[in-house]
Amino acid sequence: MLSESEKARVKELADGLLAGNRAKLARAITLVESKKPAHRKQAEELLQAILPETGKAHRIGITGVPGVGKSTTIDTLGSNLTAAGHKVAVLAVDPSSAVTGGSILGDKTRMARLAIDRNAFIRPSPSSGTLGGVAAKTRETMLLCEAAGFDVILVETVGIGQSETTVAQMVDFFLVLMLPGAGDELQGIKKGVLEIADMIAVNKADGEGAARASSAAGEYRAALHILAPRSSVWAPPVVTVSGLANQGLEDMWSQIQRHRTLTTQSGEFAATRARQQVSWLWAMLETRLMEAMKANPKVAGILPDLERDVREGNLAASAAVGRVAQAMGI
Amino acid sequence: MLSESEKARVKELADGLLAGNRAKLARAITLVESKKPAHRKQAEELLQAILPETGKAHRIGITGVPGVGKSTTIDTLGSNLTAAGHKVAVLAVDPSSAVTGGSILGDKTRMARLAIDRNAFIRPSPSSGTLGGVAAKTRETMLLCEAAGFDVILVETVGIGQSETTVAQMVDFFLVLMLPGAGDELQGIKKGVLEIADMIAVNKADGEGAARASSAAGEYRAALHILAPRSSVWAPPVVTVSGLANQGLEDMWSQIQRHRTLTTQSGEFAATRARQQVSWLWAMLETRLMEAMKANPKVAGILPDLERDVREGNLAASAAVGRVAQAMGI
Repeated sequence: MLSESEKARVKELADGLLAGNRAKLARAITLVESKKPAHRKQAEELLQAILPETGKAHRIGITGVPGVGKSTTIDTLGSNLTAAGHKVAVLAVDPSSAVTGGSILGDKTRMARLAIDRNAFIRPSPSSGTLGGVAAKTRETMLLCEAAGFDVILVETVGIGQSETTVAQMVDFFLVLMLPGAGDELQGIKKGVLEIADMIAVNKADGEGAARASSAAGEYRAALHILAPRSSVWAPPVVTVSGLANQGLEDMWSQIQRHRTLTTQSGEFAATRARQQVSWLWAMLETRLMEAMKANPKVAGILPDLERDVREGNLAASAAVGRVAQAMGI
Repeated sequence: MLSESEKARVKELADGLLAGNRAKLARAITLVESKKPAHRKQAEELLQAILPETGKAHRIGITGVPGVGKSTTIDTLGSNLTAAGHKVAVLAVDPSSAVTGGSILGDKTRMARLAIDRNAFIRPSPSSGTLGGVAAKTRETMLLCEAAGFDVILVETVGIGQSETTVAQMVDFFLVLMLPGAGDELQGIKKGVLEIADMIAVNKADGEGAARASSAAGEYRAALHILAPRSSVWAPPVVTVSGLANQGLEDMWSQIQRHRTLTTQSGEFAATRARQQVSWLWAMLETRLMEAMKANPKVAGILPDLERDVREGNLAASAAVGRVAQAMGI
């Protein structure tokens, strides 16, 4: 149970958030990112309190290899959107941030216009160590931003490990930025990315890059064409854009809106969100149980040796599991 | 702790297995597939006892849509291999078997020659309900077969849900069978399959199918070409075969052997196996913890309602997790 002062703190944050107070939003995010058990309980209360005001934003995931122009494109796209009356939050999922000590979005100068735009909010990646931890915090931050009135959430990921799949599972639309490579060997597509893309945008399609981008787009269209369609109403298009020159972004955005309209009509939009919520619940339960297991002193005392023995082939995995279960009394 | 009679039973099975006794192998598999807690403990002991004799087989995963000719191809490939002196075990991962009540391999007549080949062993999919459960049992069965002297393990999967990815994570080589479709729209490639394939074999490349198979192979080569390579020593080839006419299987097998040689030299073979073993340990720990959670009466009493409330957007996932954790006292 929360103390009276904790309850008051949660209420103050919730009220501030819902009123669109940016300082309160930032403090609320810090609260959900905290690893202290006392903070976790407060964060749960806060998230539950603001729940009715969440879910209203259009959630867009954006990925692409370093150098593809993600920051520039997000800066331009976001500025277009705020100019059109939207409130845009830019979040990041960067599982390496805990390791490197910095986030891909730590340097706000990468998005010079959005950084000083009062209708935009940029938040670097939480540094929770594991992709699952980063994703859970980002997902909760997304809810806080929605409650604070942001109606477009852009979730950027740099594409390390399974990060694209993880981000795709928390958004309504997944956009993959590609370089206008002269040949396909210049940019191998990462495992699975092609297959979770709702759209591929070949960036840097300006000036001399236009022809190469157009040619690359043709290759991606052919590649997408042989994949089984995931939606009955949407075939992922391939467009060419220039984030730098602000070219093609309007058409790209209208296609993203069209995806929302079509999937809303077909029921896929709501079904996907409901499925994402339930999956997230189960993922969080798993995470919490694994945390409890690792925090168990008896388990912590034997797990490193068990893992080593399994890796080296000296212990059957089932036997290792049996010993952990015995240590936990389950 | 096991009783003396249980210990004796485990020893008898282990000794029988290691001597290559097929009846003991079948009984050992039944033991590891059993869901009774007492059997689980015996199974752990058995797997630990035979561990030194495991890991020696070449583990090959095979997938393809229904109708692609998986059974025929496996029957022919397996017969070729036993004729060359190998001992071949064919296992199946079919997460639908618990639902349908039957296994894709239940009907041994599908592999008429292997079914009566004394150097082959066919085992249908365990019916454990979840993909994770089926995979865990199949993995343990694979170890039992290895201890019983089978040096080639073919793990077949029909490709439901994530089953290909799951199988790819327990084998050394993942083979994808494709139909010689006249046009690519005839066979959308399933999510992720292209990207876990170590080789694509276009089947039914006999008679009138030869030209179409060759054309389909070209398309798959182009598609594979734009994917980032996963190995420094292996680019997944596309071959054409006929399981029915026994054409191309010899070349296919020699390429599979070549993959083993190259990845062994580069160290990838051993590294992949070590990684698979550790991943498997963690997956099993998760499964065991989730089982313990679901078996907790306090949790079982609230979880369905919590899940429904989260799905319908009335309860924050973090709050639901908090309530489960409280019920479990963690």
